[in-house]
Amino acid sequence: MIKHIKSNEWNIIEEGFNPDYQEISESVFSLGNGRMGQRANFEESYSGKSLQGSYIAGIFYPDKTKVGWWKNGYPEYFAKVLNSPNWIGIDIKVEGLTLDLFKCKIENFRRILDMKQGILSRSFIATLENDKKIKVDAIRFLSMENPDCGIIRYSITPVNFSGKVTFIPYIDGDIKNRDANWDEKFWEISEIGSNKNEAWLLSKTKKPDFRVAFAMCWNINVSEYSINSSHNASRCENRIEIDCKKDETITLDKFVTVCSSLYYEHKKILEIARLKAEKSKQTGFEKMFGAHAARWDAIWRQSDIKIKGDISAQQAIRFNIFQLNQTYRGDDERLNIGPKGFTGEKYGGSTYWDTEAYCIPFFISTAPQQVTRNLLIYRYKHLQKAIENAKKLGFSNGAALYPMVTMTGEECHNEWEITFEEIHRNGAIAFAIYNYIRNTNDLKYLGEYGVEVLIAIARFWAQRTTFSNEKQKFVILGVTGPNEYENNVNNNWYTNKIAVWCLKYAMEALEKVKVSSLKMYHKIIEKTNFDIEKESAEWNKIIEYMYFPYNADLDLFLQQEGYLDKEQILVSDIPVNQRPINQNWSWDRILRSCFIKQADVLQGIYLFEDEFDTDTIRRHFDFYESRTVHESSLSPCVHAIIAARIGNINKAYELYLRTARLDLDDYNNEVHEGLHVTSMAGTWMAIVEGFGGKRIINNMLHFNPSIPANWEEYSFMINFNDNILEIRVSQSQVEIITHTGREVVLFVYDNLVTVNSLHNVVLPLQSGFY
Amino acid sequence: MIKHIKSNEWNIIEEGFNPDYQEISESVFSLGNGRMGQRANFEESYSGKSLQGSYIAGIFYPDKTKVGWWKNGYPEYFAKVLNSPNWIGIDIKVEGLTLDLFKCKIENFRRILDMKQGILSRSFIATLENDKKIKVDAIRFLSMENPDCGIIRYSITPVNFSGKVTFIPYIDGDIKNRDANWDEKFWEISEIGSNKNEAWLLSKTKKPDFRVAFAMCWNINVSEYSINSSHNASRCENRIEIDCKKDETITLDKFVTVCSSLYYEHKKILEIARLKAEKSKQTGFEKMFGAHAARWDAIWRQSDIKIKGDISAQQAIRFNIFQLNQTYRGDDERLNIGPKGFTGEKYGGSTYWDTEAYCIPFFISTAPQQVTRNLLIYRYKHLQKAIENAKKLGFSNGAALYPMVTMTGEECHNEWEITFEEIHRNGAIAFAIYNYIRNTNDLKYLGEYGVEVLIAIARFWAQRTTFSNEKQKFVILGVTGPNEYENNVNNNWYTNKIAVWCLKYAMEALEKVKVSSLKMYHKIIEKTNFDIEKESAEWNKIIEYMYFPYNADLDLFLQQEGYLDKEQILVSDIPVNQRPINQNWSWDRILRSCFIKQADVLQGIYLFEDEFDTDTIRRHFDFYESRTVHESSLSPCVHAIIAARIGNINKAYELYLRTARLDLDDYNNEVHEGLHVTSMAGTWMAIVEGFGGKRIINNMLHFNPSIPANWEEYSFMINFNDNILEIRVSQSQVEIITHTGREVVLFVYDNLVTVNSLHNVVLPLQSGFY
Repeated sequence: MIKHIKSNEWNIIEEGFNPDYQEISESVFSLGNGRMGQRANFEESYSGKSLQGSYIAGIFYPDKTKVGWWKNGYPEYFAKVLNSPNWIGIDIKVEGLTLDLFKCKIENFRRILDMKQGILSRSFIATLENDKKIKVDAIRFLSMENPDCGIIRYSITPVNFSGKVTFIPYIDGDIKNRDANWDEKFWEISEIGSNKNEAWLLSKTKKPDFRVAFAMCWNINVSEYSINSSHNASRCENRIEIDCKKDETITLDKFVTVCSSLYYEHKKILEIARLKAEKSKQTGFEKMFGAHAARWDAIWRQSDIKIKGDISAQQAIRFNIFQLNQTYRGDDERLNIGPKGFTGEKYGGSTYWDTEAYCIPFFISTAPQQVTRNLLIYRYKHLQKAIENAKKLGFSNGAALYPMVTMTGEECHNEWEITFEEIHRNGAIAFAIYNYIRNTNDLKYLGEYGVEVLIAIARFWAQRTTFSNEKQKFVILGVTGPNEYENNVNNNWYTNKIAVWCLKYAMEALEKVKVSSLKMYHKIIEKTNFDIEKESAEWNKIIEYMYFPYNADLDLFLQQEGYLDKEQILVSDIPVNQRPINQNWSWDRILRSCFIKQADVLQGIYLFEDEFDTDTIRRHFDFYESRTVHESSLSPCVHAIIAARIGNINKAYELYLRTARLDLDDYNNEVHEGLHVTSMAGTWMAIVEGFGGKRIINNMLHFNPSIPANWEEYSFMINFNDNILEIRVSQSQVEIITHTGREVVLFVYDNLVTVNSLHNVVLPLQSGFY
Repeated sequence: MIKHIKSNEWNIIEEGFNPDYQEISESVFSLGNGRMGQRANFEESYSGKSLQGSYIAGIFYPDKTKVGWWKNGYPEYFAKVLNSPNWIGIDIKVEGLTLDLFKCKIENFRRILDMKQGILSRSFIATLENDKKIKVDAIRFLSMENPDCGIIRYSITPVNFSGKVTFIPYIDGDIKNRDANWDEKFWEISEIGSNKNEAWLLSKTKKPDFRVAFAMCWNINVSEYSINSSHNASRCENRIEIDCKKDETITLDKFVTVCSSLYYEHKKILEIARLKAEKSKQTGFEKMFGAHAARWDAIWRQSDIKIKGDISAQQAIRFNIFQLNQTYRGDDERLNIGPKGFTGEKYGGSTYWDTEAYCIPFFISTAPQQVTRNLLIYRYKHLQKAIENAKKLGFSNGAALYPMVTMTGEECHNEWEITFEEIHRNGAIAFAIYNYIRNTNDLKYLGEYGVEVLIAIARFWAQRTTFSNEKQKFVILGVTGPNEYENNVNNNWYTNKIAVWCLKYAMEALEKVKVSSLKMYHKIIEKTNFDIEKESAEWNKIIEYMYFPYNADLDLFLQQEGYLDKEQILVSDIPVNQRPINQNWSWDRILRSCFIKQADVLQGIYLFEDEFDTDTIRRHFDFYESRTVHESSLSPCVHAIIAARIGNINKAYELYLRTARLDLDDYNNEVHEGLHVTSMAGTWMAIVEGFGGKRIINNMLHFNPSIPANWEEYSFMINFNDNILEIRVSQSQVEIITHTGREVVLFVYDNLVTVNSLHNVVLPLQSGFY
């Protein structure tokens, strides 16, 4: 754990420069606008340790699979988000010597990520090896308004001399991925050029045929300078030399556009990029920035969470909301949310079940309906691939198994116990549809897209169950549950639970569509070739006779069959120096132990909470929380929600902290690789569904708020059926405010209340509601 | 399946040249002498598909591990047998044109592996592209008498011309492994040279510091020729040009020595190799060959199996015995037997449990006692590494887990489900000690080496079991049994069985030592720090309360817990075009199915047959055989033995054929990668323990022979307690002959009989004994 970030309500602040923290800060201070992202690499040369990272949404490379032992069914490639040409670069020379923070004496170093406006700024005074001292101020943003544009303002003030300073803004296409399987380069440069006031390059991925054009132009606040433009096979630059006077600030504004072939015609893409860069320059820094900041303002108006009395928690939740919105803008159904967003190479920037299980609950409540809808359509468009994937594994009749990791709908992962066995992901995708529908009642979506996905998923489950003659029950053999510290287990309770739910909901959703549109209903039946009688009967039989591992003595659902055969020790029994166990124990020892990586039975109780009384929930929480090591970033938030549900607010707060500041405080010593973007949505859930107690039951909104002891007040916003509600919770009362004016009827602590523009709901806080 | 080998009692014969079969034949016609091995690559240039393979015992390369996803505990490297400098090379030029069988017209091609004398010969008539026709005869052997020596006789007769023929014998060190993880070269050349009549090179592995010196000299049967010697960085050669006359045969004898740093001092190694090559040349081809053939004669006298009336079976069993003896000569306890011997790169030439489970039963009966003893001492010398290995996985108190794959005692394998979970290998190593002792009564070995290994293995099992409160039994969780088509199962019956046996036998062996030498006993107790009371009590408790999965309705031991939950279909239900399933089904589908790769419960019944009556054995055979796909070469032999045991001789014969001609007929389309050397021992077992019904019960030898319907007679030799017995079985009688003269008392069909040099035992064949 590293605590090098200063607490502040709206800003992430680093003071003083420590090269050891550079890669961590590069992650933490990352910028993104949903179309591209950029780690907080320095503009100028830096010879210290650094993970260069510039990523463009939807642009990936199918990197040839690397395995020790091939198994039938493994995918041919792992889709990797590409580290893209470096467009932020501005080399600086002071009297001919290159500015390099790894080699300078540095004073007053300060780096600030202003989350309110989405801007990264950095200032410092550097004394170079030639004793020339300069003050540097650098600001940059990736425009939310013009998502092809990145803009940098870089200022230098000579402190102890007058002399030559050279700015060399450049674009460099000679770039690698650190995690390339075979140390290959993924990019080729098809065109490159420069002239007096601009430079450009057109890059191309070796496969598939993606093109990205980069163009830059610039402004400088002096009139006298000399320019040299040049380019080689992969780098283009403008070299601007200025005779500077002591204490006079020279400011270069660099305007870059990054246009990808996802949005522009191959042939015109470079021309467009150059025009856009020129236009951006003409618009100027201030106007471009104004439009960008206005976008952020709108985002915050719908998604901000305010916490009074706990700056560290306030900073953390905003950081999480900020990063999520930097990663996904929701206007392109071809895009999704990689576990590390645009902040690192790990996990390939691909889509995991994280999206459905964590990000969708966040976006559904904090963003316009269309945003979530696009995330669902993303999977709809992959349905044929998911059916093919299942077919490869021996399934038939249109059964679909969605991939564990994907960019195009094809499976990318290659550990058999995950790829083939962590099939509960299929359930998360179905549940996300349900979640979307209960929040929006968008039956059109259900009919046009949703039910088709649901039927294909249900078919998979129906075929994936086996009737055990010995048990006289349906079983699901050989799976990996959400807890990846168990592999190839039989009858994972969560998996069996969600399988049964998927079967039920597919039929329910089909019925819903039938009621709303008979035409649509018949279209679906025909398209899916659904045999209503036969398939429904089969599904109902599975629903009725599914096996759930259970221990009567403990009155406990077992994570999987045989779980109690394991030596039952508790997390508190593990010596501290052996934590985290995934860094200290061999894999087999972890597998054999009873320790749980992340919420598994509790993940199921979280999803299907209505089915259980508080005692049952508490019993399971007590049993499983004491065995859970939370070595997945996706885990503590779910436990936090359940802890709040059973009234254990202290525990909920402890778990909340673990999730909220995971990256800011680098709990697991891994932030240098990138941020845990998808699990940030879990932090939001921990507040809204944990402390806020937000639920939807029978299509009605419920809130059962509680509040941690050290918070004065917190508030959050909710979009429910296109109504924007604000919920404010203090130590004494709960207030519900509508921001859309329409009347909303909802429950607060089982009280049916009505909120409208004339009438806020105010109720006293109930501390022991459950 | 390819049937390109002609049947013959003592020879493997290929007639006609088909480049498609070349890699297969390169495997089948491999030569070895236990110190080195050579695939049947051509001496002359060949531009067709070929797997070059020259291997030297004990010389390996620690190739950096390649995995998709690293797991804690994985080894840093995979030890690979090295493809070594090419010493067989003799380029031929006919009027300046290189002889290359891929480019010639070829007539009368014939390749013969004479197993009786251990010699490979090849003859053909080739018409080159320049229309010159030559007859070629090539013979080679790897001397069993002088194991550093390889000798080649290469003859050319011009058929339709008189003209220039050039012989270019060479050694080439520019060699790669086809299966290198990272496409690296493993060899460096430290010294290289040539003069008029010889050439040499000293090669060195990049790591660890192995050196191998190669030296060659030659004789030619003409007096007039010109010589050119040369060498570059990695290849040295002598170029001998001769004016040949039509129909006159020119014969070059090439004498090569291959001296490795396992046997010679680094400094002198090259000098020694050169001296030895010169000496070999002086001794001459005929004498060298004579000594070599005499060695083979001695081997056959102790290990031959004769089958009358079935040439194909006769050829096959001799092929298996031949290859085993080519692979392992038993005079160096640092060496072991790789699954592919010296015939290919696959499996790295490393040691697997194949040695203990298959090869030891073979060598124990067909070779001097010392041979098996050395194989056991090999593991004894790895004991500390096995203890370290267990420690890495969280075990303590001197518990040992032997590696799945090893060269030095360190684990090399990197699939978690095998590396960490296929722990039954530990049992095979203990059982091999028991097997050796019951065949030899070598209590000195037991005291000096064996018990220490047994205690360390028993300690592993004691710690690897868990007491299940739910079952009130000891369980063994998360294992892979011999059937690798199941991973991470709980309570694999075979594993639990052998674990309990190991605990019992460790105590029994310790007691045996105590009785034979109290001094030795105390030495062991002290060295192992064995807590007699506490540890024995713990072990006895596990022995008493071990859980064994069992189904009462079927009166059946279950391969693992939950096995009957699987859909119970039979191998006969699998469509033929989906066989073998490992080439047609995805891995998860195989895992989920009930299909068994190789003997598992039956492997246990084979080892502990005494505990079960014939009905029980038959019931389990019928159940499991119908579910076993035998997609491991180690499987059919065990089923064959059990089939014979229950009197199903037809089935036993069917299974025997599957194992015996596996490589000669290339059943699984994989012989191009090398032969299944270790499983060849299973073929021998299928005859001796299957049809011959050889058993040792209470230290007494038993034979219960049966005979396949189409065999007239078969006979085999057995070394038991240093007595060499011959067992001849015909359709009417069983005859036991002693070749060592001492009296042996043994059982034939429950009749106690005595055999001595005066008195063969002759009894009528009992066809329905069981």
